Amino acid sequence: MEHSFLAYLRGRCRKLSQVTIGIGDDAAILESVSGQQVACVDQIIDGVDFLSDQHSLADVGYKSVAINLSDMAAMGGKPLSILVTLSLPKQNSTRIAGEVYEGILEAAAEFHLSIAGGDISTYDGPLAISVTLLGCVEHGQAFLRSGAMQGDAILVSGAVGGSIRGRHLRPVPRLELAQRLQQSVVVTSAIDISDGLSLDLDRLCAASGLGAELDTEKIPIHEDARTLAKSSGRTPFQHAWSDGEDFELLITMSQKHADSLADQNMGAPLTQIGNIVGRTGLWQRQQGKLKRLSPQGYIHGS
Amino acid sequence: MEHSFLAYLRGRCRKLSQVTIGIGDDAAILESVSGQQVACVDQIIDGVDFLSDQHSLADVGYKSVAINLSDMAAMGGKPLSILVTLSLPKQNSTRIAGEVYEGILEAAAEFHLSIAGGDISTYDGPLAISVTLLGCVEHGQAFLRSGAMQGDAILVSGAVGGSIRGRHLRPVPRLELAQRLQQSVVVTSAIDISDGLSLDLDRLCAASGLGAELDTEKIPIHEDARTLAKSSGRTPFQHAWSDGEDFELLITMSQKHADSLADQNMGAPLTQIGNIVGRTGLWQRQQGKLKRLSPQGYIHGS
Repeated sequence: MEHSFLAYLRGRCRKLSQVTIGIGDDAAILESVSGQQVACVDQIIDGVDFLSDQHSLADVGYKSVAINLSDMAAMGGKPLSILVTLSLPKQNSTRIAGEVYEGILEAAAEFHLSIAGGDISTYDGPLAISVTLLGCVEHGQAFLRSGAMQGDAILVSGAVGGSIRGRHLRPVPRLELAQRLQQSVVVTSAIDISDGLSLDLDRLCAASGLGAELDTEKIPIHEDARTLAKSSGRTPFQHAWSDGEDFELLITMSQKHADSLADQNMGAPLTQIGNIVGRTGLWQRQQGKLKRLSPQGYIHGS
Repeated sequence: MEHSFLAYLRGRCRKLSQVTIGIGDDAAILESVSGQQVACVDQIIDGVDFLSDQHSLADVGYKSVAINLSDMAAMGGKPLSILVTLSLPKQNSTRIAGEVYEGILEAAAEFHLSIAGGDISTYDGPLAISVTLLGCVEHGQAFLRSGAMQGDAILVSGAVGGSIRGRHLRPVPRLELAQRLQQSVVVTSAIDISDGLSLDLDRLCAASGLGAELDTEKIPIHEDARTLAKSSGRTPFQHAWSDGEDFELLITMSQKHADSLADQNMGAPLTQIGNIVGRTGLWQRQQGKLKRLSPQGYIHGS
């Protein structure tokens, strides 16, 4: 439901006061005299995004902040503060709030965030945590999804696939990488991998009006994907291609800038997996011929 | 639960990066070079804060924004943008989202807000809407709860009581009043009446470490309170004293400044209902003697 509804909303919002970048990127950009403000919100709900009978509530609290930090990294922004809305089941609400906040406070301390506000309700429903993250970026320096250029190198941070084995609860937001990239190169576009490498790359390409030619063998497959493949009936590559919640970054920049990063410590491994091309869609070159690849991943509300 | 948990949180947050004003006021104040940013979040849930089988979802959407605008007015801030989290029951989720957004967009258009972002989930639970509102205020010009001074006049906007007859769904955030006050006088403290005049005044007094001596006969009683009293078994005054969701402002300023406002159009009626005194608590002077008044109202989670 979400994507068609977002398209409707985007249309309806055209008449309102404008933010520089609004609905449809990883975060919004708001103008201020001193720079640009970055704002994003993400919610996780018991039974939809986690299972409270399987996951520690501190992990869940940590994740509710970390997924927003990943969006902030994907915008090239510096996080500053969070506002937290907790919806708590009536039973054991104080214990639950306390455990969730253990993880929220751990993430806040780790990433030097202030807690700027919050709201807490108890109700007849499952635990739901909505976090709004505010941050900043220098004027014109935000990484958007829409800026990729033909010929750009496509890079991915870390390794992908199989995050469901546990990494998805404690994602490492690539904030340090984003800051180092800000200082070293011109990033033309970026997105974080929340719904699967291929699906999020397809979104970046669509936002930029271009396509991608991939060297699929270069895609860094996480050890978790290999472990999972032993019992899942799918290949490690399939997991890397379509598993969600990696929270790694997909980044594009000129090939020259990508080459300049070789052997530099950027705070996270970076692997080039292909180049941006004029032909829309995702492609693989096999024995000189282009083969179309199908993006797969987790589509919200489907 | 909320208030004791907030006290715990306030303690835990002392080690984190600091916002200028954090947990415990109507909104947070964040520093920026050009001024101060104001941020607040408020959530409403079906079955707790509204009843979807009785209230129009457009009204509910409007209210989700308006209650945050009331907090912004209570801080003396200028609202700029909102981020919206919707949790939707699985059945009819698209229709519900559309109807809720009708009201959200109406409020956004009316108050010149941009929609800076959002998140939508469907789940096994009731409709819940969480809105984060971002705005700005000039350095040092925010109205806090804690600044009331002994001798200050206490003023209330509009008239109070009986909002449950319908006004609570379409509250008029006192933004214009707040802006006019910014230009005319020095507001020493302010709070919006969400949980009842007496309870919110008691909070303001507690935050300022002072008390209030009230001329209870001056409290402007809304027509809705009189109507409600005909069948509720309570007096119009009791409704005015303790009904929640008036979303009027309680404001303090020097008596001299209060006197200077007489006959000025401030964008909303303003009535002086008493003065701030050194003795903590709420008091009424009757035949020369002080009688203690008991704050009553809606306490969340009780």
